[in-house]
This record gives sequence, structure tokens and C-alpha cells, in this order.
Amino acid sequence: MTFHMPEPIATKRDGGSLTAEELAWMVASYTDDDLPHYQMAAFLMAVLFQGMNDTELGAWTEAMLTSGEVLDLSGSPLQKVDKHSTGGVGDKISLPLVPLVAACGFAVPMISGRGLGHTGGTLDKLESIPGFRTELSIRALTAQIEDIGMAMAGQSEELVPADRRLYALRDATATVPSIPLISSSVMSKKLAEDLDSLVLDVKVGSGAFMKDIDDARALAATMVSIGRSHDTPVVALLTAMDQPLGAEVGNANEVAESIATLKGEGPADVVALTMALGTEMMVGCGLFEEEAREMLDKALSSGAALQKFAELIEAQGGDPAVIDDPSLLPAAEESAIVTSPVEGFVTRCDALTVGQAAVRLGAGRATKEDNIDHGVGITIHAKVGDEVSAGAPLATVRYHSRTRLEACLSVLDAAWQFADTPPEPQQLILGEVR
Amino acid sequence: MTFHMPEPIATKRDGGSLTAEELAWMVASYTDDDLPHYQMAAFLMAVLFQGMNDTELGAWTEAMLTSGEVLDLSGSPLQKVDKHSTGGVGDKISLPLVPLVAACGFAVPMISGRGLGHTGGTLDKLESIPGFRTELSIRALTAQIEDIGMAMAGQSEELVPADRRLYALRDATATVPSIPLISSSVMSKKLAEDLDSLVLDVKVGSGAFMKDIDDARALAATMVSIGRSHDTPVVALLTAMDQPLGAEVGNANEVAESIATLKGEGPADVVALTMALGTEMMVGCGLFEEEAREMLDKALSSGAALQKFAELIEAQGGDPAVIDDPSLLPAAEESAIVTSPVEGFVTRCDALTVGQAAVRLGAGRATKEDNIDHGVGITIHAKVGDEVSAGAPLATVRYHSRTRLEACLSVLDAAWQFADTPPEPQQLILGEVR
Repeated sequence: MTFHMPEPIATKRDGGSLTAEELAWMVASYTDDDLPHYQMAAFLMAVLFQGMNDTELGAWTEAMLTSGEVLDLSGSPLQKVDKHSTGGVGDKISLPLVPLVAACGFAVPMISGRGLGHTGGTLDKLESIPGFRTELSIRALTAQIEDIGMAMAGQSEELVPADRRLYALRDATATVPSIPLISSSVMSKKLAEDLDSLVLDVKVGSGAFMKDIDDARALAATMVSIGRSHDTPVVALLTAMDQPLGAEVGNANEVAESIATLKGEGPADVVALTMALGTEMMVGCGLFEEEAREMLDKALSSGAALQKFAELIEAQGGDPAVIDDPSLLPAAEESAIVTSPVEGFVTRCDALTVGQAAVRLGAGRATKEDNIDHGVGITIHAKVGDEVSAGAPLATVRYHSRTRLEACLSVLDAAWQFADTPPEPQQLILGEVR
Repeated sequence: MTFHMPEPIATKRDGGSLTAEELAWMVASYTDDDLPHYQMAAFLMAVLFQGMNDTELGAWTEAMLTSGEVLDLSGSPLQKVDKHSTGGVGDKISLPLVPLVAACGFAVPMISGRGLGHTGGTLDKLESIPGFRTELSIRALTAQIEDIGMAMAGQSEELVPADRRLYALRDATATVPSIPLISSSVMSKKLAEDLDSLVLDVKVGSGAFMKDIDDARALAATMVSIGRSHDTPVVALLTAMDQPLGAEVGNANEVAESIATLKGEGPADVVALTMALGTEMMVGCGLFEEEAREMLDKALSSGAALQKFAELIEAQGGDPAVIDDPSLLPAAEESAIVTSPVEGFVTRCDALTVGQAAVRLGAGRATKEDNIDHGVGITIHAKVGDEVSAGAPLATVRYHSRTRLEACLSVLDAAWQFADTPPEPQQLILGEVR
């Protein structure tokens, strides 16, 4: 079936609904280079203003999903689960989470992205492990799932090509910030992983894409509804991203913090969020919550999860010796310390500011073409609620270039705010959408 | 100055205002092929939703205007005036109006377009005169203005190239129906004519682009404001387009009706509108209304206007003998008559329906690629307020193809509605915007 593209554009422009046939044709034609970019660009902007209803969004996502190959993990007898985070600062949760859940007997075929702007990327972090390969073919990824029950890789060319094209177009046409377009982009990639259950970590706060809980809830609800259309159980947790997660922001230093977490020495928030997301992943496969949490606790305390991480590193060409000796990870030798100007309680440690400071340092990318410096990063010593004396260290910055250090420090200072009395305790998990 | 296009797109998307520099850069880069179609398409859709303020629109139109050459009519000592109609059914007013105003001593450098859909085009009508050329180079058009004070031609490639590109993109991306985009398209072309005064005929009603008077008034106000930014006096009349203008709808038959009008034998509405628009054109150049109307009356009754039309035809390669012998115009030989099913008063003679029937007959284009059949057309015998008996002729249809006749008749019947009592008299001129 073919359509005259100005007509569906006009329908959407005027607030009408499109048929599954129209949407499927649009995505397929665009992927096949039969639909010009300019017509898709106008359509995307119309969607940004008019939205898509659940039926439209289900059809649109399904069309994206089937624009290329999808994983076939039927060769593994395990249930397949995954987690997606909408991105934050210091969000290294995937690194301890994947081996932890895999250690509980689930397959985790995690396909991740790179960092851009103030949010880091799982692939960038993993690549600070010497030798670690994140580019796996569909065949290699499938074989690895069958072999060790987990993989952490970048999106291959064959998987959801429509998303790659649409995302590049959205980036160039200011049509990124649209809940239906964000949701379909995330969900098409995740649903291509052949999952039994998916958990979303929808971040809320200064360091997140969604600054406010109502927007985050709307995004979560939209993604959950796409899961429903596809008959895949999806649960979203809304979690705080006003301050960085854990103490480490960067790449190698986040890997080190992840290893520490798997050794039972992780910061409270990283541990709590890893356990919460892991529990939901397993509950989505039919386990009771208590049962799931017990299995996770055991996998962590027994060292099984740590052992799984070593297996993952080895399977993807990395050096598993980093687990016993994190000094094998790249680390910039020079360091500078940010100190507190006052005595008092920390009331704010702004995630966005820390994330932007990390980009200036070279730990993240300002543009897609930038290179990452894996050995630089920020270690935070004082987070919200902590009491500090004047002159006490707030953060240690590891750097290679003095120019970049100065650029980093010129913004980093402003991340902290103080008061004479302790702030209200902050919740980590703010809500959920099922 | 250059910009990163996603930023101005995002500004407009979020309801902000753009600077003159941003808008000028955008139009110039797009005209020069430096800005990809997809970015402009997304921007146009954002404009459709968010609009442009008067300052933005002035800058945008000015940038379009200066994207190519503009006319330099300083070689003629006359004041330059023109009229633009937003398009209707049976709207042949330009044909008697141009020679009439030229006969009063004004230069009229009219650049027109072709018909699409149910509205006819001035160039198509003129081309039914054997030999008449509507493609004039800027040089030829300028020389003709200096010579006989008038020209009626199509837009040359050199004039406002930005509009040609933008219009083609809007047509393909469902971004045509936007008041700022329509206004800037019309005004950039008209202001490129080096005018002292411009009159707009903004049609309102079933056969017009604007179905309702408030929308029409908004469009008129926007165009008048662009004129103000450019320091060109612009007046808009809002005129009725619920039923066709005059009795003839087609091409050669509208030329014949125009000639009749210049002979003093025109239908009342065609004469009234021609005089009203001509008066405004001259008032815009500083004449008093009464003075202008007197000059127009005289030019008409003396035959000077008719003589001017003969000059125009001759100057553009046509055969001026059509003036004395309209049978030299092409005319389909076959004809069919639509009769009234009842006795009563005509309460509706729907312009849109008649226009669509004329397209089916071959007198107009359904798509840009269609050819016009100049000899077919509809002559209307009963308009709103007329009393008819059952079986009385409502219209005569001149046709070449029986298939097309049937397609025409299958919709034409529905144009008329009747009642036992006469309807309220309808106004022709509904308002004005200065």
C-alpha cells in the first residue's frame, strides 16, 4: 500500500489520527530511502506538536522494530530481561546490574548507547576496560547470550535501522524532545532484543532529560503502553537525578565504582537502585518480589555476580584482571581538589552542573564527534545531606589537560549549595508506572 | 553570519522569536542550496504551529524579496500599482482591471500565477487568446511597462527564487495553510514589482481559501503589515466568494466576459469589483476616491480601457482581433444544459462546487501536471436571488469529452439550492483592512 505523503502529514498537522497502514508505510519507505527526508522532517515536527495516541504509537514502534533484523534468542533456555535508563550523571547502574541479574539465571541481552552532553554512556564506560569490545555482530551477540547469558554491546547496523535514520533526522531538525518520538526510539530498540520483561529507569531532575515528575510519568506511561501493544511486560521506575548517582562521574572511575559495588562496597544509592531495578526485572518474569530480592542478595554476597562480570569482560575481549586490580584501568595522574567555602550541610550537588563539568574535563562529549578521555573524572566527596567544614574536600578532579581542568572547575564550584541545617532526606525512587 | 539551524528551529518550535539575521541567513542559505530541505521543512511546520510576529515576518519577506532580482521600473515616469487576489471561482477581474487602470495613466506590472484546484489562474485564462505569451523576461517586461504601461506575465526564474523553492517544499510537506507563510509568499512577489501601491482582494467563502471572515481578516492584516514593514501602501478588500464571480467559469469564456466588461456589458458583480479595486489602487497613489472613480468610469465608457486591452494583447503576441470577434477564442462545440428541478428562488450557487465541476470538465487542474482545456467552461444562468421556474436553465456546460462532461455534471447539480422566498441580498465587499 502506498500513500501520498502530504496527506498523512496534513492529518497529523490537524490533530487527526493515522492508520497503522499509513504509519507502517511511512517508516518502511523512509528506511528504504523512498520517502524524502523533508517530508519525514515535517511529519516529525507535526508529531512533536500533536502527539500520537497509543494505537498510533504501537503501530509506529512496530514498524520501526521490523525495519531491520531482530534478535532471536530462542537458542537460550533462559528468560530474557533488560533495563533501559533515560540517562543521568554517574549512572553506571547497568554495569553491576547486568552480571548481577545474569548471576540469578536470567539472560540479559543489553544493547546500549554512547554518551552525549552531560549524560554518560554505558559503552564509553565499558571501553575504559583494556581490550573491551562493544561492537558485536548479531551472530556474536546471540552466541554470547547462549554461552554466558549476557552481553553489553552497541546497536548493530542491522538492528532497527529506522531508528538510526530517524534519530539523525530528529537531531538535525530540533524534533528530539517529543515524548512519542523518544518512547518509540527507546522501545523499538529494546523490543528488538526479544525480551520477556523490560524495566525502565526514567530519571527525573536537573541531570535528567525530564526535569519534572509529571513529564517523567508521561514518558514512562507512553513507553509502558508501547510495551503493552507489543505484549511485553514493561515496568518503569521514576528515580531521582538531582545529584549524581554514587561518588564517581567519568568512565574508568565509574567502572571501578561498579566493581566495588559487585564486591559489596558500593555507595548506598548505587546499591539500592541496582537492587530495585534487578528485582523489577525478575518480578516481570513472574518471580515474587521477596524471592527476587533474596536471589539478588545472594548473587551479590556470594561473589557470583562479580564472577559473572569477569566472564562478561573476558567474553568481550577485555582484561578481567581489572576486577582484582582496578589500577589496570586508565587513570589520569594529575588531580585537583574542590573544597567547601563554608561550614554547613550540603543541600544541593547539582547533577547537571557536575555532568557539564565532566564534559569540559573530557569525560563526556559536547558533540557526537568528540573523543572520550577514559582516565579523567570527578570523585564526589560531599553529597546532599552531608555535613562539611570550611575547606573540606567536595570533589577530586582527575585531569590530563590543565586547560580542560580550568574549564571544568569554572563550572563545577557552582554545583554545591549549603545551609546551616540539614535538608529533608531525598527519595531515590519517586514512583513507578506499570 | 551563520547559524546552527537546529537552534532557530528549536526557538520557533518553543514559541520564541527569531532575529532578522537568523531569518535572512535561513532564506539565503536555503536559496543557495546550503541549507538542507529537511531542516527548512521542520522549520516551516514549526512556523505553521507557532506563527511569526510582524517583525519576524517583515524580515522573512524582505529576505525572500532580495533572494533574486527585483523589477526596476524607474524608466517609466508613471506610478506603479497592482492587485493580488487570493483566488476564487470565475475571478477574471485582473483581465479588465489591468487595462482599465493603465488607461487612467498608471503602470501595472502584474505578475500572476496559474490555477490549481478549483480556483482559476490569470495566466491560463490569458493563454486562451491565440498567440498570447505569458513568459516574459525581466528585461522584456520592464521594456513593455516603459512602452505601454502594463504587462501580465508569469513569474520569471530570477524573481524571488526563494519563494519558488519554499512553495514547492510547502506543497510537499503540508505546510501551505499558514497565514504567515501564505502572506510572505504573496507579498515577496508583489513587493518585487517595485510598486507605489498594492491592493489585495482577499476572498471569503466556500470558493475561497479562507472560508470565514475572521481568518480572511487575519490574512489581510498580516499582508498589510508586511507592506507597512516595506513602506509600501497596501489595502485589502475582503470580498464574497460564496458564488462564482460573473456568469462565466473557465478560460476562453472568462476572457470573453472580460472583453464584454470592457465594452460596458459586464455582469454587475464583475463591474462593481473591478471598479472598487481600481479605485483603491489609485487612491493608494494619492488620488481622492471620487476622482479615481470618475477617471475609471471615463476610461471604461470612452473605450480607452478596451483599447488598452488590445494593446496589451498585441504587445504580448496575441491576436487583438478577439476583441471585436470573440468567436476567435477557442470554444468547445458540444454543450449540455443543467436545468432547475423546482420553481423558486436561488439561495445558493456554490462557488467551490462549480469550481470543482470546472476542474472535472478540464477547465482547471487537479494536479500541477494537468493540462488546461481552454475551450471548455460553464456559463451560469441563475445566481443567488434569481427566480427560476422548474426546468429553466441553470447553466450551460461546453465540453469536449463526454466522460469529462459526466464527471462535471455529477457534481455540478449540487451547486444550487432553492427556496420559496428570495434570500437576503448578499454583499460583494464585506470589509477592508488598511
